[in-house]
Amino acid sequence: MSWLALLDFGAVMIFALTGALVASRAQMDPVGFLFIACLTAMGGGTLRDVLLDRNPVFWIAQPTYIAVACGAAIVVFFTAHLLESRLRTLLWLDSLALAIAVPAGAGVALELGAPPPIVILMGMITGCMGGLMRDVVVGDVPVVLKQGELYVSAAFGGALALWLTSTYFAPDVPALVAGAAVTWALRAGSLAFGWQLPTYRSTPPKS
Amino acid sequence: MSWLALLDFGAVMIFALTGALVASRAQMDPVGFLFIACLTAMGGGTLRDVLLDRNPVFWIAQPTYIAVACGAAIVVFFTAHLLESRLRTLLWLDSLALAIAVPAGAGVALELGAPPPIVILMGMITGCMGGLMRDVVVGDVPVVLKQGELYVSAAFGGALALWLTSTYFAPDVPALVAGAAVTWALRAGSLAFGWQLPTYRSTPPKS
Amino acid sequence: MSWLALLDFGAVMIFALTGALVASRAQMDPVGFLFIACLTAMGGGTLRDVLLDRNPVFWIAQPTYIAVACGAAIVVFFTAHLLESRLRTLLWLDSLALAIAVPAGAGVALELGAPPPIVILMGMITGCMGGLMRDVVVGDVPVVLKQGELYVSAAFGGALALWLTSTYFAPDVPALVAGAAVTWALRAGSLAFGWQLPTYRSTPPKS
Repeated sequence: MSWLALLDFGAVMIFALTGALVASRAQMDPVGFLFIACLTAMGGGTLRDVLLDRNPVFWIAQPTYIAVACGAAIVVFFTAHLLESRLRTLLWLDSLALAIAVPAGAGVALELGAPPPIVILMGMITGCMGGLMRDVVVGDVPVVLKQGELYVSAAFGGALALWLTSTYFAPDVPALVAGAAVTWALRAGSLAFGWQLPTYRSTPPKS
Repeated sequence: MSWLALLDFGAVMIFALTGALVASRAQMDPVGFLFIACLTAMGGGTLRDVLLDRNPVFWIAQPTYIAVACGAAIVVFFTAHLLESRLRTLLWLDSLALAIAVPAGAGVALELGAPPPIVILMGMITGCMGGLMRDVVVGDVPVVLKQGELYVSAAFGGALALWLTSTYFAPDVPALVAGAAVTWALRAGSLAFGWQLPTYRSTPPKS
Repeated sequence: MSWLALLDFGAVMIFALTGALVASRAQMDPVGFLFIACLTAMGGGTLRDVLLDRNPVFWIAQPTYIAVACGAAIVVFFTAHLLESRLRTLLWLDSLALAIAVPAGAGVALELGAPPPIVILMGMITGCMGGLMRDVVVGDVPVVLKQGELYVSAAFGGALALWLTSTYFAPDVPALVAGAAVTWALRAGSLAFGWQLPTYRSTPPKS
């Protein structure tokens, strides 16, 4: 199995865990768990594959991904009540999934020979859109857009790091590792220490 | 016309009725009726076709579908005020549309030779995503995700029944009928008798 | 550069401005501005390209579009506070973007030889879906669906005008201009003078 497929598996599994946690917070039934878990786990990568016209879409080519996502959802259904804080667990798992999905997305685009802006955008789309779909469908405020947190920015930083590493230093594994590390460091720093970019605040016109 | 195309027509027409009913509850203008009706009617099947890379998408290949959806929306615009309860009508029509769309989606995937998990997922996607788009766009709580009701589960059951029938008993029409019957029985049972799966309820940790 | 590409550039730029204004109202950080701007700017055209199976999608073929959208977002980040009313600016810019995107979408479908209903629908999809995604993701009531305003109807009128002009009078530039003019006139008339279609209002059953 290629490194990229392995990353896709990791991202699918961890995103499925976050989807199932969201389902547990919404008190859904087991099939609802599976549905939200699959949507979250496969949403970003599916969008990437449709946009890049990769046929077939990754989970149609390899239905094992679906089994992995469903397995993760079932585990959460039976264990979520053991967690002290589902929201904290959710946010930290989500940060891991993001850190894996960003290089998975950017790496695929790189392999297809896409130009740099597309490589970076595909990393961001694969990382962010699954979680966004999860939150929009359930009706939560999207984690992706929460004020005063790095999320899309972390994905951007990671995808940029991957592209820079692969172009100026070493492709393949080192680039993937750099992408994951930078994404996770930025996102985790934001969760743990409140790192953020200045947000827009309207100031009175200078008259 | 093939049986699958006939099912697509039926699902498009009935989903369009539900979309127009939602538009009437939101007091939209006639073009809003057409828009939501088309989104609901064509959303699930479009997603199926894009994911399976069927070209062209069914309503682009055959624009009659659009006329059917628009016709249904116009009928609702002029008759919705005659209904005693728009919400009940909406839910029951939606259950019929689901029961038709699930075998329509699963049948297409089966015909293309997709593996079992993809057949089942395509049935669920075709059945559930149109109604989900309708509710997310209008800002309602998605019927698909309503707590304590079978919906995604009914779609799953129906798609599974279709696949089992077609594999172990008889393909084509009997399988499509089995898929529709199981989907509708589960969904209608849930609406009429409150059938449900146990939902997730957090219990205190076992210490 | 073809006229259609030029229209796509115009629509991308102006929709990006509206996306960034929405981001400023939600007090996002700079990367949030870029994200919402790109989603709004590219959403409708991307859906058009995926549905028509145009490969690659326009902004993957020509990443300059991304630069244009990001540039517009940055300009708004630094100037939005100078505006007297961001909401009014947003609505009027949105009307311009709609008027450009509708002919851009319908023109592409026409060029590909699509039948009339598809030409009209692609105009409506390209015009309306970017703004719809912007509003759904941010959690606002979609401008597209606001009661008592022409929006989808304006897109419909413009796309119809484009098709009629191109079929019975003159293709290419005159048709594109007709599409843009009719769309904008209808939308602007609705904003300025309150033009609307009769909305659905339930009347008591005739007994």
